[in-house]
Amino acid sequence: MPGITGLLEYRKDTAAPIRELTQTLLRGPSTLTEGERELIATIVSYQNECVFCTSAHTAAADALLGENVTTAGIKENVDSAPVSEKMKTLLKIAAQVQQNGNSVTPDAIQLAKDAGASDLEIHDTVLIAALFCLYNRYVDGLSTLVPRDSSYYQALGERLKVNGYNRLPQGYDFLKKQS
Amino acid sequence: MPGITGLLEYRKDTAAPIRELTQTLLRGPSTLTEGERELIATIVSYQNECVFCTSAHTAAADALLGENVTTAGIKENVDSAPVSEKMKTLLKIAAQVQQNGNSVTPDAIQLAKDAGASDLEIHDTVLIAALFCLYNRYVDGLSTLVPRDSSYYQALGERLKVNGYNRLPQGYDFLKKQS
Repeated sequence: MPGITGLLEYRKDTAAPIRELTQTLLRGPSTLTEGERELIATIVSYQNECVFCTSAHTAAADALLGENVTTAGIKENVDSAPVSEKMKTLLKIAAQVQQNGNSVTPDAIQLAKDAGASDLEIHDTVLIAALFCLYNRYVDGLSTLVPRDSSYYQALGERLKVNGYNRLPQGYDFLKKQS
Repeated sequence: MPGITGLLEYRKDTAAPIRELTQTLLRGPSTLTEGERELIATIVSYQNECVFCTSAHTAAADALLGENVTTAGIKENVDSAPVSEKMKTLLKIAAQVQQNGNSVTPDAIQLAKDAGASDLEIHDTVLIAALFCLYNRYVDGLSTLVPRDSSYYQALGERLKVNGYNRLPQGYDFLKKQS
Protein backbone atom coordinates (compact mmCIF):
# COMPACT_ATOMS: atom_id res chain seq x y z
CA MET A 1 0.00 0.00 0.00
CA PRO A 2 1.63 3.23 -1.14
CA GLY A 3 2.37 6.45 0.71
CA ILE A 4 0.57 7.31 3.90
CA THR A 5 -2.10 4.67 3.27
CA GLY A 6 0.24 1.83 4.14
CA LEU A 7 1.40 3.56 7.33
CA LEU A 8 -2.12 4.31 8.49
CA GLU A 9 -3.04 0.66 8.03
CA TYR A 10 0.14 -0.50 9.81
CA ARG A 11 -0.71 1.04 13.17
CA LYS A 12 -4.40 1.85 13.41
CA ASP A 13 -4.40 3.15 16.99
CA THR A 14 -2.07 5.98 15.98
CA ALA A 15 -3.79 6.41 12.60
CA ALA A 16 -7.18 7.21 14.12
CA PRO A 17 -6.18 10.48 15.86
CA ILE A 18 -4.03 11.50 12.88
CA ARG A 19 -7.05 11.08 10.59
CA GLU A 20 -9.31 12.92 13.04
CA LEU A 21 -6.92 15.86 13.39
CA THR A 22 -6.57 16.15 9.63
CA GLN A 23 -10.28 15.88 8.97
CA THR A 24 -11.03 18.59 11.55
CA LEU A 25 -8.35 20.97 10.28
CA LEU A 26 -8.77 20.47 6.53
CA ARG A 27 -12.48 19.65 6.23
CA GLY A 28 -14.09 20.99 9.40
CA PRO A 29 -15.90 24.35 9.64
CA SER A 30 -13.53 27.17 8.73
CA THR A 31 -13.47 30.60 7.13
CA LEU A 32 -10.74 29.19 4.86
CA THR A 33 -12.07 27.12 1.98
CA GLU A 34 -11.11 23.45 1.69
CA GLY A 35 -9.13 24.37 -1.42
CA GLU A 36 -7.21 27.07 0.45
CA ARG A 37 -6.37 24.65 3.24
CA GLU A 38 -5.12 22.09 0.70
CA LEU A 39 -2.85 24.83 -0.72
CA ILE A 40 -1.21 25.11 2.71
CA ALA A 41 -0.68 21.33 2.75
CA THR A 42 0.71 21.52 -0.79
CA ILE A 43 3.26 24.29 -0.26
CA VAL A 44 4.64 22.67 2.92
CA SER A 45 4.90 19.23 1.30
CA TYR A 46 6.54 20.80 -1.73
CA GLN A 47 9.14 22.60 0.38
CA ASN A 48 9.80 19.39 2.31
CA GLU A 49 10.35 17.67 -1.07
CA CYS A 50 7.86 14.96 -0.16
CA VAL A 51 6.84 13.62 -3.57
CA PHE A 52 3.92 11.54 -2.35
CA CYS A 53 2.29 14.28 -0.25
CA THR A 54 2.97 17.03 -2.79
CA SER A 55 1.35 14.97 -5.54
CA ALA A 56 -1.58 13.94 -3.36
CA HIS A 57 -2.41 17.42 -2.01
CA THR A 58 -1.81 19.14 -5.34
CA ALA A 59 -4.38 16.74 -6.77
CA ALA A 60 -6.78 17.39 -3.89
CA ALA A 61 -6.45 21.17 -4.26
CA ASP A 62 -6.85 20.92 -8.04
CA ALA A 63 -10.00 18.82 -7.59
CA LEU A 64 -11.45 21.30 -5.08
CA LEU A 65 -10.50 24.42 -7.06
CA GLY A 66 -11.48 22.95 -10.43
CA GLU A 67 -8.20 24.04 -12.05
CA ASN A 68 -4.49 23.38 -11.74
CA VAL A 69 -3.08 26.87 -12.25
CA THR A 70 -3.12 27.87 -8.59
CA THR A 71 -1.13 24.90 -7.27
CA ALA A 72 1.46 25.44 -9.99
CA GLY A 73 1.53 29.15 -9.15
CA ILE A 74 2.17 28.84 -5.42
CA LYS A 75 5.06 26.44 -6.04
CA GLU A 76 6.60 28.93 -8.47
CA ASN A 77 6.09 32.17 -6.51
CA VAL A 78 3.45 32.92 -3.90
CA ASP A 79 3.48 36.64 -4.69
CA SER A 80 2.41 36.14 -8.30
CA ALA A 81 0.06 33.21 -7.65
CA PRO A 82 -3.66 33.71 -8.33
CA VAL A 83 -4.75 33.73 -4.68
CA SER A 84 -6.09 36.49 -2.42
CA GLU A 85 -3.75 38.86 -0.59
CA LYS A 86 -4.76 37.19 2.66
CA MET A 87 -3.87 33.74 1.30
CA LYS A 88 -0.49 35.03 0.16
CA THR A 89 0.32 36.10 3.70
CA LEU A 90 -0.91 32.79 5.13
CA LEU A 91 1.06 30.73 2.60
CA LYS A 92 4.17 32.70 3.55
CA ILE A 93 3.60 31.89 7.21
CA ALA A 94 3.18 28.21 6.26
CA ALA A 95 6.45 28.38 4.33
CA GLN A 96 8.20 29.80 7.41
CA VAL A 97 6.71 27.08 9.64
CA GLN A 98 8.13 24.48 7.24
CA GLN A 99 11.62 25.81 7.95
CA ASN A 100 11.19 25.94 11.74
CA GLY A 101 8.76 27.31 14.29
CA ASN A 102 11.33 29.93 15.22
CA SER A 103 11.47 31.06 11.58
CA VAL A 104 8.00 32.59 11.76
CA THR A 105 8.50 36.35 11.98
CA PRO A 106 6.33 38.90 13.80
CA ASP A 107 6.27 40.78 10.48
CA ALA A 108 4.69 37.85 8.68
CA ILE A 109 2.01 37.57 11.37
CA GLN A 110 1.34 41.31 11.23
CA LEU A 111 1.03 41.25 7.44
CA ALA A 112 -1.53 38.46 7.71
CA LYS A 113 -3.54 40.44 10.26
CA ASP A 114 -3.32 43.56 8.09
CA ALA A 115 -4.66 41.51 5.17
CA GLY A 116 -7.67 40.53 7.26
CA ALA A 117 -6.63 37.12 8.59
CA SER A 118 -8.25 36.23 11.90
CA ASP A 119 -6.33 34.78 14.86
CA LEU A 120 -8.01 31.43 14.20
CA GLU A 121 -6.97 31.47 10.53
CA ILE A 122 -3.37 32.17 11.56
CA HIS A 123 -3.56 29.45 14.22
CA ASP A 124 -4.95 26.94 11.75
CA THR A 125 -2.37 27.85 9.11
CA VAL A 126 0.45 27.18 11.58
CA LEU A 127 -1.09 23.91 12.78
CA ILE A 128 -1.82 22.64 9.24
CA ALA A 129 1.75 23.48 8.23
CA ALA A 130 3.08 21.74 11.36
CA LEU A 131 0.87 18.71 10.68
CA PHE A 132 2.29 18.34 7.18
CA CYS A 133 5.80 18.56 8.61
CA LEU A 134 4.73 15.46 10.55
CA TYR A 135 3.15 13.72 7.54
CA ASN A 136 6.04 14.45 5.19
CA ARG A 137 8.57 13.02 7.67
CA TYR A 138 6.39 10.00 8.42
CA VAL A 139 5.99 9.16 4.74
CA ASP A 140 9.59 9.77 3.67
CA GLY A 141 11.30 8.69 6.90
CA LEU A 142 9.91 5.20 6.39
CA SER A 143 10.53 5.19 2.61
CA THR A 144 6.98 4.37 1.62
CA LEU A 145 6.16 3.35 -1.92
CA VAL A 146 5.57 6.32 -4.23
CA PRO A 147 3.35 5.62 -7.25
CA ARG A 148 4.55 7.34 -10.43
CA ASP A 149 1.30 7.12 -12.35
CA SER A 150 -0.48 10.50 -12.31
CA SER A 151 -3.85 8.76 -12.56
CA TYR A 152 -3.22 7.37 -9.08
CA TYR A 153 -3.02 10.88 -7.63
CA GLN A 154 -6.01 12.10 -9.63
CA ALA A 155 -8.08 9.33 -8.10
CA LEU A 156 -6.65 10.05 -4.65
CA GLY A 157 -7.32 13.79 -5.02
CA GLU A 158 -10.91 13.06 -5.99
CA ARG A 159 -11.29 10.77 -2.96
CA LEU A 160 -9.88 13.47 -0.66
CA LYS A 161 -12.33 15.96 -2.15
CA VAL A 162 -15.34 13.69 -1.76
CA ASN A 163 -14.52 11.69 1.37
CA GLY A 164 -11.92 13.74 3.20
CA TYR A 165 -9.55 12.10 5.64
CA ASN A 166 -11.73 9.55 7.33
CA ARG A 167 -11.03 5.87 6.85
CA LEU A 168 -11.14 4.59 3.30
CA PRO A 169 -14.76 3.72 2.51
CA GLN A 170 -15.95 0.67 0.61
CA GLY A 171 -15.38 0.95 -3.11
CA TYR A 172 -12.07 2.77 -2.84
CA ASP A 173 -9.96 -0.30 -2.12
CA PHE A 174 -8.18 0.17 -5.44
CA LEU A 175 -6.36 3.09 -3.80
CA LYS A 176 -4.68 0.63 -1.47
CA LYS A 177 -2.98 -1.06 -4.41
CA GLN A 178 0.15 0.43 -5.85
CA SER A 179 -0.41 1.56 -9.41
CA MET B 1 -1.20 29.79 29.71
CA PRO B 2 2.36 28.95 28.66
CA GLY B 3 3.70 26.69 25.94
CA ILE B 4 1.55 24.01 24.42
CA THR B 5 -1.00 24.23 27.26
CA GLY B 6 -2.39 27.51 25.98
CA LEU B 7 -2.67 26.20 22.43
CA LEU B 8 -4.41 23.01 23.49
CA GLU B 9 -6.94 25.06 25.41
CA TYR B 10 -7.42 27.48 22.49
CA ARG B 11 -8.80 24.90 20.08
CA LYS B 12 -10.01 21.82 21.91
CA ASP B 13 -11.32 19.92 18.89
CA THR B 14 -7.82 19.77 17.43
CA ALA B 15 -6.23 19.31 20.87
CA ALA B 16 -8.12 16.07 21.57
CA PRO B 17 -6.57 13.97 18.76
CA ILE B 18 -3.12 15.53 19.38
CA ARG B 19 -3.32 14.46 23.02
CA GLU B 20 -4.60 10.99 22.08
CA LEU B 21 -1.82 10.44 19.53
CA THR B 22 0.82 11.54 22.03
CA GLN B 23 -0.58 9.43 24.85
CA THR B 24 -0.69 6.33 22.63
CA LEU B 25 2.83 6.82 21.28
CA LEU B 26 4.59 7.94 24.46
CA ARG B 27 2.63 6.14 27.17
CA GLY B 28 0.88 3.26 25.42
CA PRO B 29 2.16 -0.34 25.41
CA SER B 30 5.63 -0.47 23.83
CA THR B 31 8.89 -2.36 24.02
CA LEU B 32 10.53 1.05 24.44
CA THR B 33 10.33 2.42 27.99
CA GLU B 34 8.51 5.69 28.63
CA GLY B 35 11.86 7.25 29.48
CA GLU B 36 13.35 6.10 26.16
CA ARG B 37 10.41 7.57 24.27
CA GLU B 38 10.82 10.89 26.11
CA LEU B 39 14.48 10.89 25.02
CA ILE B 40 13.30 10.81 21.39
CA ALA B 41 11.00 13.78 22.10
CA THR B 42 13.87 15.57 23.82
CA ILE B 43 16.50 15.19 21.10
CA VAL B 44 14.10 16.32 18.35
CA SER B 45 12.91 19.35 20.36
CA TYR B 46 16.52 20.20 21.17
CA GLN B 47 17.57 20.08 17.52
CA ASN B 48 14.55 22.21 16.59
CA GLU B 49 15.70 24.71 19.24
CA CYS B 50 12.26 24.69 20.84
CA VAL B 51 13.01 25.90 24.37
CA PHE B 52 9.60 25.06 25.83
CA CYS B 53 9.43 21.48 24.49
CA THR B 54 13.10 20.75 25.18
CA SER B 55 12.71 21.88 28.79
CA ALA B 56 9.42 20.02 29.25
CA HIS B 57 10.55 16.68 27.78
CA THR B 58 13.98 16.83 29.39
CA ALA B 59 12.14 17.19 32.71
CA ALA B 60 9.75 14.33 31.84
CA ALA B 61 12.64 12.04 30.83
CA ASP B 62 14.60 13.00 33.97
CA ALA B 63 11.57 12.24 36.14
CA LEU B 64 11.05 8.86 34.46
CA LEU B 65 14.74 7.88 34.48
CA GLY B 66 15.38 9.20 37.98
CA GLU B 67 18.52 11.07 36.89
CA ASN B 68 19.52 13.91 34.57
CA VAL B 69 22.75 12.55 33.13
CA THR B 70 21.16 10.81 30.15
CA THR B 71 19.26 13.81 28.80
CA ALA B 72 22.41 15.93 29.09
CA GLY B 73 24.39 13.16 27.38
CA ILE B 74 22.18 12.75 24.31
CA LYS B 75 22.24 16.51 23.68
CA GLU B 76 26.03 16.48 23.85
CA ASN B 77 26.76 13.34 21.80
CA VAL B 78 24.53 10.34 21.26
CA ASP B 79 27.49 8.00 20.79
CA SER B 80 28.89 8.65 24.25
CA ALA B 81 25.51 8.95 26.02
CA PRO B 82 24.63 6.33 28.65
CA VAL B 83 21.95 4.57 26.59
CA SER B 84 21.83 1.13 24.96
CA GLU B 85 23.32 0.52 21.51
CA LYS B 86 19.78 0.09 20.18
CA MET B 87 18.71 3.46 21.61
CA LYS B 88 21.73 5.13 20.05
CA THR B 89 20.65 3.92 16.62
CA LEU B 90 17.04 5.02 17.25
CA LEU B 91 18.08 8.46 18.50
CA LYS B 92 20.17 8.89 15.35
CA ILE B 93 17.13 8.04 13.21
CA ALA B 94 15.10 10.58 15.19
CA ALA B 95 17.82 13.18 14.60
CA GLN B 96 17.64 12.48 10.85
CA VAL B 97 13.84 12.75 10.86
CA GLN B 98 14.20 16.17 12.50
CA GLN B 99 16.16 17.37 9.49
CA ASN B 100 13.76 15.92 6.91
CA GLY B 101 12.05 12.63 6.09
CA ASN B 102 14.36 12.26 3.11
CA SER B 103 17.38 12.60 5.41
CA VAL B 104 16.77 9.18 6.96
CA THR B 105 19.36 6.85 5.45
CA PRO B 106 18.99 3.12 4.70
CA ASP B 107 22.24 2.70 6.66
CA ALA B 108 20.67 4.21 9.78
CA ILE B 109 17.68 1.87 9.50
CA GLN B 110 19.97 -1.14 8.96
CA LEU B 111 22.10 -0.25 11.99
CA ALA B 112 18.95 -0.07 14.12
CA LYS B 113 17.85 -3.50 12.90
CA ASP B 114 21.33 -4.92 13.51
CA ALA B 115 21.17 -3.53 17.06
CA GLY B 116 17.93 -5.45 17.62
CA ALA B 117 15.32 -2.76 16.95
CA SER B 118 12.00 -4.14 15.74
CA ASP B 119 10.09 -2.73 12.78
CA LEU B 120 7.52 -1.30 15.22
CA GLU B 121 10.24 0.38 17.30
CA ILE B 122 11.65 1.99 14.15
CA HIS B 123 8.14 3.01 13.05
CA ASP B 124 7.38 4.53 16.44
CA THR B 125 10.71 6.35 16.58
CA VAL B 126 10.00 7.99 13.21
CA LEU B 127 6.43 8.90 14.18
CA ILE B 128 7.42 10.29 17.60
CA ALA B 129 10.15 12.36 15.94
CA ALA B 130 7.68 13.57 13.30
CA LEU B 131 5.11 14.40 16.00
CA PHE B 132 7.60 16.59 17.83
CA CYS B 133 8.42 18.35 14.58
CA LEU B 134 4.72 19.25 14.65
CA TYR B 135 4.71 20.25 18.34
CA ASN B 136 7.88 22.34 18.13
CA ARG B 137 6.51 24.29 15.15
CA TYR B 138 3.11 24.73 16.77
CA VAL B 139 4.62 26.10 19.98
CA ASP B 140 7.25 28.35 18.41
CA GLY B 141 5.31 29.33 15.27
CA LEU B 142 2.72 30.98 17.47
CA SER B 143 5.27 32.45 19.92
CA THR B 144 3.77 30.93 23.03
CA LEU B 145 4.88 32.10 26.45
CA VAL B 146 7.99 30.30 27.68
CA PRO B 147 8.41 30.18 31.48
CA ARG B 148 12.00 30.66 32.61
CA ASP B 149 11.60 29.19 36.07
CA SER B 150 13.05 25.67 36.19
CA SER B 151 10.58 24.71 38.92
CA TYR B 152 7.81 25.10 36.33
CA TYR B 153 9.35 22.39 34.15
CA GLN B 154 10.07 20.12 37.11
CA ALA B 155 6.39 20.26 38.03
CA LEU B 156 5.41 19.72 34.38
CA GLY B 157 7.82 16.80 34.03
CA GLU B 158 6.35 15.18 37.13
CA ARG B 159 2.84 15.67 35.76
CA LEU B 160 3.85 14.09 32.43
CA LYS B 161 5.34 11.15 34.33
CA VAL B 162 2.29 10.61 36.52
CA ASN B 163 -0.59 11.68 34.26
CA GLY B 164 0.80 11.47 30.75
CA TYR B 165 -0.74 13.47 27.95
CA ASN B 166 -4.42 13.31 28.73
CA ARG B 167 -6.26 16.48 29.67
CA LEU B 168 -5.02 18.30 32.72
CA PRO B 169 -6.70 16.69 35.75
CA GLN B 170 -8.09 18.56 38.72
CA GLY B 171 -5.40 19.80 41.05
CA TYR B 172 -2.92 20.68 38.35
CA ASP B 173 -4.48 23.97 37.39
CA PHE B 174 -1.39 25.78 38.62
CA LEU B 175 0.35 24.51 35.49
CA LYS B 176 -1.96 26.65 33.45
CA LYS B 177 -0.58 29.77 35.04
CA GLN B 178 2.63 31.24 33.79
CA SER B 179 5.30 31.15 36.43
